[in-house]
Amino acid sequence: KPNLEPLLGSLRSIMEANQARRRPKVAKGARDLVPAQMMVRQAAIGALTGVFTRHGAVAIDTPVFELRETLTGKYGEDSKLIYDLADQGGEILSLRYDLTVPFARYVALHGVSQIKRYHMAKVYRRDNPQMNRGRFREFMQCDFDIAGSYPPMIPDAEVLKVAAEALEQLQLGNFEIKLNHRQLLDAMMALAGVPASKTRAICSAIDKLDKEPWSAVRAEMVEQKGLSPAAADRIHGFILSEDAMNLRRQPQQLLAALSAPDHPFSSNADARTALEQLKILFDLLHRMQALDHIAFDLTLARGLDYYTGVIYEVILVGENVGAIAAGGRYDGLVGMFSGKDVPAVGVSFGIERMFNILEQRAAERAAAAGHKLRESQTQVLVASIGKNLQMQRLEVCQRLWASGIAAEFGYKANPVLKEQWNYAEEQGIPLMLFFGAEELEQGTAKIKIVSGPRKGSDDEVVQLSDIVAFVTACST
Amino acid sequence: KPNLEPLLGSLRSIMEANQARRRPKVAKGARDLVPAQMMVRQAAIGALTGVFTRHGAVAIDTPVFELRETLTGKYGEDSKLIYDLADQGGEILSLRYDLTVPFARYVALHGVSQIKRYHMAKVYRRDNPQMNRGRFREFMQCDFDIAGSYPPMIPDAEVLKVAAEALEQLQLGNFEIKLNHRQLLDAMMALAGVPASKTRAICSAIDKLDKEPWSAVRAEMVEQKGLSPAAADRIHGFILSEDAMNLRRQPQQLLAALSAPDHPFSSNADARTALEQLKILFDLLHRMQALDHIAFDLTLARGLDYYTGVIYEVILVGENVGAIAAGGRYDGLVGMFSGKDVPAVGVSFGIERMFNILEQRAAERAAAAGHKLRESQTQVLVASIGKNLQMQRLEVCQRLWASGIAAEFGYKANPVLKEQWNYAEEQGIPLMLFFGAEELEQGTAKIKIVSGPRKGSDDEVVQLSDIVAFVTACST
Repeated sequence: KPNLEPLLGSLRSIMEANQARRRPKVAKGARDLVPAQMMVRQAAIGALTGVFTRHGAVAIDTPVFELRETLTGKYGEDSKLIYDLADQGGEILSLRYDLTVPFARYVALHGVSQIKRYHMAKVYRRDNPQMNRGRFREFMQCDFDIAGSYPPMIPDAEVLKVAAEALEQLQLGNFEIKLNHRQLLDAMMALAGVPASKTRAICSAIDKLDKEPWSAVRAEMVEQKGLSPAAADRIHGFILSEDAMNLRRQPQQLLAALSAPDHPFSSNADARTALEQLKILFDLLHRMQALDHIAFDLTLARGLDYYTGVIYEVILVGENVGAIAAGGRYDGLVGMFSGKDVPAVGVSFGIERMFNILEQRAAERAAAAGHKLRESQTQVLVASIGKNLQMQRLEVCQRLWASGIAAEFGYKANPVLKEQWNYAEEQGIPLMLFFGAEELEQGTAKIKIVSGPRKGSDDEVVQLSDIVAFVTACST
Repeated sequence: KPNLEPLLGSLRSIMEANQARRRPKVAKGARDLVPAQMMVRQAAIGALTGVFTRHGAVAIDTPVFELRETLTGKYGEDSKLIYDLADQGGEILSLRYDLTVPFARYVALHGVSQIKRYHMAKVYRRDNPQMNRGRFREFMQCDFDIAGSYPPMIPDAEVLKVAAEALEQLQLGNFEIKLNHRQLLDAMMALAGVPASKTRAICSAIDKLDKEPWSAVRAEMVEQKGLSPAAADRIHGFILSEDAMNLRRQPQQLLAALSAPDHPFSSNADARTALEQLKILFDLLHRMQALDHIAFDLTLARGLDYYTGVIYEVILVGENVGAIAAGGRYDGLVGMFSGKDVPAVGVSFGIERMFNILEQRAAERAAAAGHKLRESQTQVLVASIGKNLQMQRLEVCQRLWASGIAAEFGYKANPVLKEQWNYAEEQGIPLMLFFGAEELEQGTAKIKIVSGPRKGSDDEVVQLSDIVAFVTACST
């Protein structure tokens, strides 16, 4: 390889130095997050963290870049979307593509035999960005996984319980956890007579049933993928049977029907294993009060190769936003790094999709309340009437800060009351405390309720010595 | 340029595919953060966020990579430490090197005229890592800045107040904010007769006075940097005068002495400006109850070119860890992007250094309490005696989770009480709740205090219906 680097380096410096000043930009497919977005995100991240830590989960973090060899061969076709770092003399690095491979690498590297961990961090994909549809090249992922050898289905149940609690906590609306089992899919393929070479393609056709009618899916199977019509119809008999359709939200009943001695599943070892595991799982979920959210859905056939047991997807009922969380059991992934398998099960939250929904909601609420999306957590604006009172505003602020109350005093030396009011109203700051020379002499201040249900009520007069107690009472 | 990429690409794939499985690694100079480290970090980040939001600050975030042209020409010599992304057809990108340049780019791009923001995020430097000394290639920075045109010194005072509150909140120990003014340094250089061409070099010598005696610094000035001995001695007369030494922790007194009509500063316009600004600043800090932490230190001469006003550094008194926060006023940086200056002042916390100190403290506390560094926030381990009680443990856990209490039930089907106790003790979980068939029949459980001041007290018997109230009372 001729060494062109020095030449290219010089060329680059010359071009950069000659560059005229231009309007600054961010990289394609990336974006700045503005304060109102950060407010929504921090609240959601806090809520999710609360759920994870309540279940005794630990947090880990991994570097934003991995050795390229760590990522190689893990993403199939999608490997071309990996961001590489330049070779600046040293190791060959790439930006992480997801949090699952770094987690498997972490478990292998640290010789961890069991861990219940969450990880929220940004990942990078050189995809064609569709920014109007919320698809970016830099975006956050939020994963919760439990790795370790345990009695069957206990960690699987807790992962699903955590997913349910997370969705409840975020109040995104009515949700459903669609659940199936990889070995049950394998059994259906075998019993329907699908050749092993076509299994994957047929599963990916099945997975489209949430968007397309059976006729379209069947056509794909038979015409595009060369499955025999008889096999396609046998698949239909499994996944769209009357029981499968009617009992999907009564998972224990559907399970009982599928476990009947005269059901074809009884002749298939994979199916029997899956049904036994699901029986334990549904029992555990019932005890954890999470079974209500489960839909036992034989049409769910998630694409990823590495799943080995239960698989699931969370959807918002009646909304067309696709899955907002998904996961399953993957017992082989860690072994790809260490040679020693550590079984694992987990869920990945589509946290950017959640952020989008929460941002919309927040915008609607703010519009209804007549202010902008909140950007800060300020509870009190300390305002004044008349001149030369900045020091006094500042001292009142200091008193509030010292008591843990979020307050601003306005940097303008002599602001007009109206503009201070406008600022508080626009920003959605709940209270405005204000005083002039007269109030100060009497050791008092007035308080206006700027937003919330009591907006518009009369100003209240408060002793300056009582303001902390007053504000605290207002904000609870 | 001959297009070698396809060839190199094929070569790379062949090499990667032939690679034997090896022990996984992380990139040089990067590291995983393990759960115990994350606990310490999350607590510190929470404390700092609390301070920033109390002052009405907003959060922003920027992409981990910037267009390379955004970073070009901002870091002088250190530009060689910037991580570049590979050219994969598209824009030329680099990883961010700090949070200040992205902030200036953000302000310019979004046309922001005023903002009070904080930003905590990782930055990247291809430095020679000294991992045993806590220097990594990927590390977190934490910046708080106020940009906008305001009456003099108001935002400067609030930045210093925020720095003081942050240090108080983290309880790192006794600290001092060393403070000086760029124009005062310029004035001293001019009055001492330092040629303009040597000003920067002489300032960097002065900055070493916290580590070296005057004799060494003088030698550097005269012998290495060619300053006349007379000029060096005049500098000594300014920065190490009796007043400068004795009154550094009484900033208003030192200011008064330097502002006396017979002081050489009275003849210098830069000095007069600086002293007037410092007078306002000290007044404001006094009102904000933050002046106690200030050391007005004429020997502070921070290197960075872009400072235009006050400069400061926070040190831990009596500890040899260097500055743990630093900053100042930089009125020209935003203008480099937009052509329109937006004056700004800020502080950057050496948050990795803080994390190190807090990790050590946490390790000492854990050792004293006889457990490992805590990894999770679990408050209660739900344990059992005898066989087949996992479902019951799980149900009790569910009751605790539903009340927001962090609890674990242990995944082993039939654990021995002793091993459950050992786990709780080792992990520093405060309470262990346990029961056997007998207690369950009576609707009760026993509680052991595993850690904390009441460790070793007798087991208490609690009604299962009362456990939430009991645990809540224990943890407050």
